[in-house]
Amino acid sequence: MLVQGTTRVGFIIGHPIAQVKSPGLFNRHFAEAGADRVLVPTDLAPAQVESFLATLRGVHNADGAVVTVPHKRAVVPYLDSLTDRARRLRAANVIRRNPDGTLVGDNVDGLGFTLAAAAHGLAPRGLTALVVGAGGVGSAIADALCEAGVARLALTDLATDAVAWLATMLADAFPATAIERPGSVADLSGYDLVVNATPAGMGGTGALPLPEAAIATLRAGCLVADVVTSPALTPFLQLAQARGCRVQQGPEMAAAQMTALGGFMGAM
Amino acid sequence: MLVQGTTRVGFIIGHPIAQVKSPGLFNRHFAEAGADRVLVPTDLAPAQVESFLATLRGVHNADGAVVTVPHKRAVVPYLDSLTDRARRLRAANVIRRNPDGTLVGDNVDGLGFTLAAAAHGLAPRGLTALVVGAGGVGSAIADALCEAGVARLALTDLATDAVAWLATMLADAFPATAIERPGSVADLSGYDLVVNATPAGMGGTGALPLPEAAIATLRAGCLVADVVTSPALTPFLQLAQARGCRVQQGPEMAAAQMTALGGFMGAM
Repeated sequence: MLVQGTTRVGFIIGHPIAQVKSPGLFNRHFAEAGADRVLVPTDLAPAQVESFLATLRGVHNADGAVVTVPHKRAVVPYLDSLTDRARRLRAANVIRRNPDGTLVGDNVDGLGFTLAAAAHGLAPRGLTALVVGAGGVGSAIADALCEAGVARLALTDLATDAVAWLATMLADAFPATAIERPGSVADLSGYDLVVNATPAGMGGTGALPLPEAAIATLRAGCLVADVVTSPALTPFLQLAQARGCRVQQGPEMAAAQMTALGGFMGAM
Repeated sequence: MLVQGTTRVGFIIGHPIAQVKSPGLFNRHFAEAGADRVLVPTDLAPAQVESFLATLRGVHNADGAVVTVPHKRAVVPYLDSLTDRARRLRAANVIRRNPDGTLVGDNVDGLGFTLAAAAHGLAPRGLTALVVGAGGVGSAIADALCEAGVARLALTDLATDAVAWLATMLADAFPATAIERPGSVADLSGYDLVVNATPAGMGGTGALPLPEAAIATLRAGCLVADVVTSPALTPFLQLAQARGCRVQQGPEMAAAQMTALGGFMGAM
């Protein structure tokens, strides 16, 4: 598809942007679907987030924007409204522009995770889960698991401030879920779902998000997931697979998220 | 070419934008050249011109913007610098974003015209020309003809304020050119070049920019040009052709302008 005067536009804002895969993935999807749409890679400096959003209100052929690192929190003050989950997480990774120019933020990082997990047959309700990493993506996954009804959710992160904030927020929002902050995670045998939401293992460093001895306690048949996309099969997932666990790779979440992102902008 | 994370971006701002041909023309050119570039159609409301330009400063993968109706004058106050011709015309139709984020405005409407005329063998120096229409495009053409050294330039427009401003500006900037404002143009036999820079004839209305009796006085061999792009051969040009004049059609100027626009943004 040729980008032309009639083309509907979406932006993806990040800084930097050249390494981000989703513009190419989205645009390939649009081309295959014969859609007169384009997702525009926009390497936006942090100082311009506010003016970008002011501008987006007045771009009549735009459906919205995908928001990536480091802008997910920065956009929040400048939106007209937020979905409940985006408000809880104080971060948006997608913005819909309504025809009247108002901007609505959502956060579908967690939805991408649970959609990918559902493809593995995982139904979170009543389960016991561990999320390692309380950054933006880990918080979104934890929030989505609580919303989907996990019975117990354990959170760990080296950044104790982040995990303390997340645990308090989730405990307030989801009283039916027991939120735990285990001091150590030597024994993983009690978990139905274990998620690495840290960068450990990214770029083939071989780093593990949990001690190898702990990984050796994983129960066969549980689902072990990683948000790292490169390599797709991280050392953590390799060890889990060797234990007989089902594994969910980072690209699965990324692909599921595309559907959620595009759906929110009305573009897919 | 697939638009992807690495793609260099330019915007074209107008309101509306769907009918504008240049995004498709530019992007077809980029595709044929194998360039990882896209010109993004941006239907920008007038209220957002200032924030758009503030944003453009911080879009690190952007080379600039093409500016079309109705924003050519509105952008001027928000640019860091202007070329001489853009300053004279108080209007920019292209903005280059330098790597440090500064924005420079130029106006290549007139350059597009003189490039197209040069392809017909026209060298303006020393000639006598008539430009009908003192709007944005007519002003730019008149300015470019003065810069190229026409000896005499006659200007007419129903909007007397516009033509008065333009005549004064040109007389100040180009003392070597005799700027005239003929009360009527019944006799065109003295002109080497006659340009319609009004919308007369656009969309097949059959309207003429000058009285038919005046057109009948055109000298064979002179160059008659029209800025109207649809139809390409306007009724005015048909009459001129029947008189034995050379004719320059609107799309020729538009095509020549693309080269000038892309060159200024460093994108072609």
